[in-house]
Amino acid sequence: MTAAQLTLVQIDNYGPWTVTPEPRREMDLQTLQSRLFADMAQYIGNRGGYVFFTRFDNMVAVTNGLDRRDHELLQESVGNRFPVTVSLGVGVDGVPIDALETATERVQAAGSAQSSDRSEALAGEFRDPEGADDGDVHIAHFDVNDATGKYTDRLNEFDSFINIEHGYASLMKYMREEHGALSFFVGGDNVIAVCPDLTYDEYMGAIDHVADDVDVQLKVGVGSGESPHEAGYAAKHALEDCRYEGTLVEFA
Amino acid sequence: MTAAQLTLVQIDNYGPWTVTPEPRREMDLQTLQSRLFADMAQYIGNRGGYVFFTRFDNMVAVTNGLDRRDHELLQESVGNRFPVTVSLGVGVDGVPIDALETATERVQAAGSAQSSDRSEALAGEFRDPEGADDGDVHIAHFDVNDATGKYTDRLNEFDSFINIEHGYASLMKYMREEHGALSFFVGGDNVIAVCPDLTYDEYMGAIDHVADDVDVQLKVGVGSGESPHEAGYAAKHALEDCRYEGTLVEFA
Amino acid sequence: MTAAQLTLVQIDNYGPWTVTPEPRREMDLQTLQSRLFADMAQYIGNRGGYVFFTRFDNMVAVTNGLDRRDHELLQESVGNRFPVTVSLGVGVDGVPIDALETATERVQAAGSAQSSDRSEALAGEFRDPEGADDGDVHIAHFDVNDATGKYTDRLNEFDSFINIEHGYASLMKYMREEHGALSFFVGGDNVIAVCPDLTYDEYMGAIDHVADDVDVQLKVGVGSGESPHEAGYAAKHALEDCRYEGTLVEFA
Amino acid sequence: MTAAQLTLVQIDNYGPWTVTPEPRREMDLQTLQSRLFADMAQYIGNRGGYVFFTRFDNMVAVTNGLDRRDHELLQESVGNRFPVTVSLGVGVDGVPIDALETATERVQAAGSAQSSDRSEALAGEFRDPEGADDGDVHIAHFDVNDATGKYTDRLNEFDSFINIEHGYASLMKYMREEHGALSFFVGGDNVIAVCPDLTYDEYMGAIDHVADDVDVQLKVGVGSGESPHEAGYAAKHALEDCRYEGTLVEFA
Repeated sequence: MTAAQLTLVQIDNYGPWTVTPEPRREMDLQTLQSRLFADMAQYIGNRGGYVFFTRFDNMVAVTNGLDRRDHELLQESVGNRFPVTVSLGVGVDGVPIDALETATERVQAAGSAQSSDRSEALAGEFRDPEGADDGDVHIAHFDVNDATGKYTDRLNEFDSFINIEHGYASLMKYMREEHGALSFFVGGDNVIAVCPDLTYDEYMGAIDHVADDVDVQLKVGVGSGESPHEAGYAAKHALEDCRYEGTLVEFA
Repeated sequence: MTAAQLTLVQIDNYGPWTVTPEPRREMDLQTLQSRLFADMAQYIGNRGGYVFFTRFDNMVAVTNGLDRRDHELLQESVGNRFPVTVSLGVGVDGVPIDALETATERVQAAGSAQSSDRSEALAGEFRDPEGADDGDVHIAHFDVNDATGKYTDRLNEFDSFINIEHGYASLMKYMREEHGALSFFVGGDNVIAVCPDLTYDEYMGAIDHVADDVDVQLKVGVGSGESPHEAGYAAKHALEDCRYEGTLVEFA
Repeated sequence: MTAAQLTLVQIDNYGPWTVTPEPRREMDLQTLQSRLFADMAQYIGNRGGYVFFTRFDNMVAVTNGLDRRDHELLQESVGNRFPVTVSLGVGVDGVPIDALETATERVQAAGSAQSSDRSEALAGEFRDPEGADDGDVHIAHFDVNDATGKYTDRLNEFDSFINIEHGYASLMKYMREEHGALSFFVGGDNVIAVCPDLTYDEYMGAIDHVADDVDVQLKVGVGSGESPHEAGYAAKHALEDCRYEGTLVEFA
Repeated sequence: MTAAQLTLVQIDNYGPWTVTPEPRREMDLQTLQSRLFADMAQYIGNRGGYVFFTRFDNMVAVTNGLDRRDHELLQESVGNRFPVTVSLGVGVDGVPIDALETATERVQAAGSAQSSDRSEALAGEFRDPEGADDGDVHIAHFDVNDATGKYTDRLNEFDSFINIEHGYASLMKYMREEHGALSFFVGGDNVIAVCPDLTYDEYMGAIDHVADDVDVQLKVGVGSGESPHEAGYAAKHALEDCRYEGTLVEFA
């Protein structure tokens, strides 16, 4: 039984801050956002979780293995080192989108993303560590077949990017609508999806859909585990298997 | 006369590095990528340039104001502090996509993105500082009308993200095909585009296209300048004008 | 019974690396060193430990609460993100200098600090978590009485620094020789010492020694705990008590 | 004629901030301080300057080549990305301590280091770029003879550190009192000094003093240049010459 624990990380009142008293230098904002994400990736990642930059002012994390105290400490540490604070909402569900729905509602209930009254809200439920098992998290790691040969070494970078981006846009929509799975672009030609327990045919269905829809050929490795890192690491190995075997879907 | 100087930043042989000798922890890769981008944003940004994370292993920068020596020093500093190196290609043109085409070809000519032989290639031409003027760079800063009220405070974060993402995918394709402009998602509900000299009607055309195509309502502030920062900063102020005036397109 | 767990962090073969093939830019080395330390401070710190920059290529950490797996993961993560690797030695003892002696010997046994053969050595023993109790770690937080009024706001910064520095040099030597305690300058006018279980008179003795030796007036707050953070946090509060009470030594 | 441009960087009202409303986690403060220094090192360093962490809340930089606009932008960027701001004072003089004296007075005149009223003060004079020449900055790079063999590979790390530290304390005092030079520990067994134009005998005098005073054997490479980087880079090469020749003082 899948039991994904999803955390929404939302910077408090960020939009107004970026233009007060005057618009701030864009490259400083980009630096701030990417370093905040990097710190999240280290903190959550070395506890076995995964975090995705999403929109940067809102980040989505899979946090199986992190409890309330871990979340509190993350908030405290960000508040001590950055000029902004973050609110956190947490939910647990067999279907990732439902877990995130719960997580988001908890942050929204504490106040608007652009309210100066809300600061460091934290609300949610956490996966009972006693019940945790290696079927809790399913990660699918997609990449584009021969992206270097087909795009990077042949097209200008923006046209390469458009191809990858449209493959991603197509996949994210399909996986969300068909399976309640959350797919995130993680750089290069890679997409990592947090999924319910899906079959070979369901993954083939996704790959076929993207090929038909936007003519981008994906392959995917799938792994499961008690934590996102365990599931994701198994998925990476499965994806290496695809590479060596010339297959499109491999399970760890 | 627009004269955008575009730099392609490509990590050397990154794909193979990420899986040698075994796949590396995903959150370490995410940290590495976002910190490399953050350092680029500081270095290029405090010289008046703009850089966009694009695919992270390939980043696109607008570097009017940075000369060959600035590019060499950036390479040296990255090589001293990161476990990877970067190759750089530079091109100048009135149409941004053409400048990037030239920049990309120069990197490709030095070797494949997955070649272990290529390291720290640097090739390109630079905007003559004598000829630089405040019509060299045009920046358009788009955002989504009332994204907080319509999405962030109402939908779960992934569905908010899908809306923003599809608005972006539609805009990036239209601007590239119609105008040779390069549009980059920069977080939140913001897209920054590097453009040739476009008219009010051409910007309205882009906004109408996205509204029709994916039902996302954009607005845009446009600025020009000798450097990306000057153009982009003017664009931010113009976008604030849209906010106060309730208009969809404003020029600085 | 004090049982401090000390970890020596030593960058592998760093000296030769800094001058190969040519001396590297000093400010890049400074950036690399301070960011490596910052990452250590986050990783170790949010697990309840303390780390001190010492000589930057050798750092000393108090790691009660971190086990072998935590140390392995730290090594792996550094190796994935920096151009250098680190070796780690760990020791446990009632007297901090003895714990560090053991920790250091374990790294030395694996090879010279300037050997290209040694990489990511890890050796040591770890405090048994079953036996851990709140007397394991003693932290003393010293600062200089009215440093801002006496130095920072009156002297040029280098002469202020000389005063603080000489106070530190005197204290570090005394505490090590008299008590086997390890004292580290942590910025401003602050010194944090990892100590065995010392009395009020022993702390007064240290303060008197420094006042006599180099005419710098210290005060100190002392705390104990199962982890360095708990002990150190209590020490900070005790130091605040000194400030309000006008006393020179306070225990939490 | 030496003309060193010294900048004092002082965090505004930092002491009170670190304990408001409660003492902040020490490892978060350490992270904040070292990352602020790292960013200074990048910004100043890639413009040819040098910065030293000194007390972290007060940093000393040699900024020949950086003008008022560079200083303003540094302040703005720090304010956009950190929870603290910095004040800057700048002075120029043939004797480094006199330049720093002027720089410090300008910051002090703007308000106390612990005043909540002072924020982002900037005052000073800048080296006229027209008059700049390659005798403006003199850098001496000292290290300890065979520190690895004598200390690092033989003693526990704290006792190694005490030796290096006492060598540094002795050198910093001598160089300041005899020559108005500013010496900074930069990690490992390295000390970098910003000096007036000194002779071979004067450097030998310093080395002899430290050997007599604390029994630590130094050697030194000396370089000059228009910028700290040029002078310091030449000094590093001269220090390599000492290593190969077995000499104690070499000029580039």
